[in-house]
Amino acid sequence: MPTVPEAPPVVVRDALIVTQDAERRVIRGDVRFEAGRFRSVGGTAATEGAEIVDGRDLAVLPGLINAHQHVAMSILRGVADDVDLSGFLERLFAVDARRTEADVETGALAGIAEMLLSGTTSFLDLYYYEDAVARACERLGIRGFLGWAVLDPEMTTQSGRPIDNAAAFIDRWTGHPLVTPLVAPQGVYVCGEGTWLAARRLAESKRTLCHYHLSETRKEVHEHEAKTGRRPPLWLEEIGFLGPGQVAAHGVWLTNREIAVLAERHVGVAHCPSSNAKLATGGVAPVVELRAAGVTVGLGTDSAASNNSLSLLREMHVAGLLQKNHRWDAGALTAQELLDLVTVEGAKLLGRSADLGSIEVGKSADLSLVRLDHPTMGPARAEAVVSHLAYSASEEAIDSVYVGGAPVVRERKLVREPWEGIRAAAASAAERLWIAATPLSRSHG
Amino acid sequence: MPTVPEAPPVVVRDALIVTQDAERRVIRGDVRFEAGRFRSVGGTAATEGAEIVDGRDLAVLPGLINAHQHVAMSILRGVADDVDLSGFLERLFAVDARRTEADVETGALAGIAEMLLSGTTSFLDLYYYEDAVARACERLGIRGFLGWAVLDPEMTTQSGRPIDNAAAFIDRWTGHPLVTPLVAPQGVYVCGEGTWLAARRLAESKRTLCHYHLSETRKEVHEHEAKTGRRPPLWLEEIGFLGPGQVAAHGVWLTNREIAVLAERHVGVAHCPSSNAKLATGGVAPVVELRAAGVTVGLGTDSAASNNSLSLLREMHVAGLLQKNHRWDAGALTAQELLDLVTVEGAKLLGRSADLGSIEVGKSADLSLVRLDHPTMGPARAEAVVSHLAYSASEEAIDSVYVGGAPVVRERKLVREPWEGIRAAAASAAERLWIAATPLSRSHG
Repeated sequence: MPTVPEAPPVVVRDALIVTQDAERRVIRGDVRFEAGRFRSVGGTAATEGAEIVDGRDLAVLPGLINAHQHVAMSILRGVADDVDLSGFLERLFAVDARRTEADVETGALAGIAEMLLSGTTSFLDLYYYEDAVARACERLGIRGFLGWAVLDPEMTTQSGRPIDNAAAFIDRWTGHPLVTPLVAPQGVYVCGEGTWLAARRLAESKRTLCHYHLSETRKEVHEHEAKTGRRPPLWLEEIGFLGPGQVAAHGVWLTNREIAVLAERHVGVAHCPSSNAKLATGGVAPVVELRAAGVTVGLGTDSAASNNSLSLLREMHVAGLLQKNHRWDAGALTAQELLDLVTVEGAKLLGRSADLGSIEVGKSADLSLVRLDHPTMGPARAEAVVSHLAYSASEEAIDSVYVGGAPVVRERKLVREPWEGIRAAAASAAERLWIAATPLSRSHG
Repeated sequence: MPTVPEAPPVVVRDALIVTQDAERRVIRGDVRFEAGRFRSVGGTAATEGAEIVDGRDLAVLPGLINAHQHVAMSILRGVADDVDLSGFLERLFAVDARRTEADVETGALAGIAEMLLSGTTSFLDLYYYEDAVARACERLGIRGFLGWAVLDPEMTTQSGRPIDNAAAFIDRWTGHPLVTPLVAPQGVYVCGEGTWLAARRLAESKRTLCHYHLSETRKEVHEHEAKTGRRPPLWLEEIGFLGPGQVAAHGVWLTNREIAVLAERHVGVAHCPSSNAKLATGGVAPVVELRAAGVTVGLGTDSAASNNSLSLLREMHVAGLLQKNHRWDAGALTAQELLDLVTVEGAKLLGRSADLGSIEVGKSADLSLVRLDHPTMGPARAEAVVSHLAYSASEEAIDSVYVGGAPVVRERKLVREPWEGIRAAAASAAERLWIAATPLSRSHG
């Protein structure tokens, strides 16, 4: 089992620290981290043996957490735009049939590169061939919370039973410093009762998270209700599936009663506003109601094929705009709340509140150094920095990124592998795969 | 009257040219421009006397057109977030009282820098002290279509009568190669019939555009209807104001009858989805209906205080997401249509279709060179490049920008003035002005 390479201690001096601590303090001072963890936050830090970074024009931001992804699909960005989820899946499946495990690793590398370069240090993924994604996480240094997709055996293209594949995947990667394996039942449209309950048992026995799609589209909700007499969340409750340690992606079409059930069962939700809107899901997820009911809500980009950006900076902006406009309330999802979704709330969703999501002594040193002198971060006033992060910051303002104290991006360049090689491999895989895709339609319809 | 500095001929070789011509061709080949205009597009260009740029990893994109801005407000970004338009204006006015003409130039420089660095080469502005904005355009090399704000004399803080100020401003700048002056009645809430008609007469006599706010909020519409018995567009029609050469910003709350009147009078609309959503305007502008009725629609960011980004790359994404989701139609506003809004349609809105908005021989050489090897532009396939521009491209992918054939951005740096000086002046102005602002509220409400 490989470990994270030991990095030297670092002191960022006199920076604007967006702590995301319990008081959400934004303070000027030093940050010291070593052996993977924050050792001092604020005030003046001891500098012995440390690499010193001049922080006067930098904000220190907790590493961002992407709560829903299919990162390997990055090589398919643009293959199926301007169509709804059914049309989207139809085109994707045509390509999927030709996909190899090597293509999954290639796509994952491209997507992880884009995430690291926009300040994301942890992501929750749902896919197959997750070993390839795990290797990509190791290669570039991001934290992957990787869910092996589980569906009814007769519905899958996986070799072997998906639930067995998931179990084996979990066994291979448990205990890895960057990769956290988990089980991921795909959704009610491909998972029957037996699959859901097997996934729950697996998660319980291996003590992993369980991640799944839920109430994303009207079609999903209505077809499941027609088939079972229950809308998906109440059906999952009835079969005894729902419980803590679960993250449901989307949750657009939830009733108040369903929200209460999710809260009672301690199920978290990964909100994916851009993907939902781009696929014309039609509603706006009840984020305010979910949070008011005590449901933990994180923010996910979903894949590059349905968003099409993997930047959580952009996703915060979109999430805020949709809630404010939909609710006729400019105070819905404030800048501070948006930043919470991608930091402390994301960490809670992953069951890692004690370790991730804020700049506090003892937590893992997952952070970005953000240029306060970037045009999209001005005027660079302490009282406006959270607003700029949520509403205007361009990815280019993310200068450097550390995961577990180790540098993974420096001055806008990946540290572990050059982008050019990743890009060349992605271009070559895309060349082969795109031939299988039905032609792009740019016309209305 | 200063002129645009003469730049040497440039040939971009073997690039992916996003022509935005009538057939919306995306072709690989050379682009040559000199003396401010495109001389050859596609095929192999003559290279004599030209600076050669290797275009193999570049897309050539028409300069983007921002159809509604108050660029000087860039130093106020973050001063009034998470409040509706009334609360927003209340906070802004507290600051405005202290603003000097020098502050307007400083704010304009910061905003123009952000626009150039995201590929915008023309913008339509509505403000006062527009001479300061014009000087900022000259200094950094962007095309400014600058509307002097006109309102009833008893409502203004301008010295002198606003309509006279507008006339004098137009006289001072008419014929300038980069600055196109115009008149800008602010909106029905501060302009009576006399002001609207004086603005129309001024625009006709000086042959300028006329730019104004229209039907942005429910409050505006309802209060005007209560006062006059007519909703704003039909009242403007009744008083004989509406006509060609006009650009109405926002147009969120328009009925089908009002859309028909705008079409009949050849009034264009600047759609500002992020600003509308952030201020919780509540509806979604009827962009599809406007276009179907033959109304020209462009895309505007509005100011950095209400968006808060000035990037049209991000704005295309938001515009597409809102239309698709609101209409339950993933085919509403396709990637190609989104790119049209910020290029050919924007040019039409400005009355400059013959000169701006596409890469065609004889048109002004306003263009960006976009890195196809940037992570957010992959996979860099010709059939996906328009999708990437509309849905995923980060500003960092904009490598270089030319206006009228002259370089204004090279390798992500402003050519004419260093960003550091602009930033320092903006920080210092913000320091003084922000004291006047009421405290930021990040709480819900």
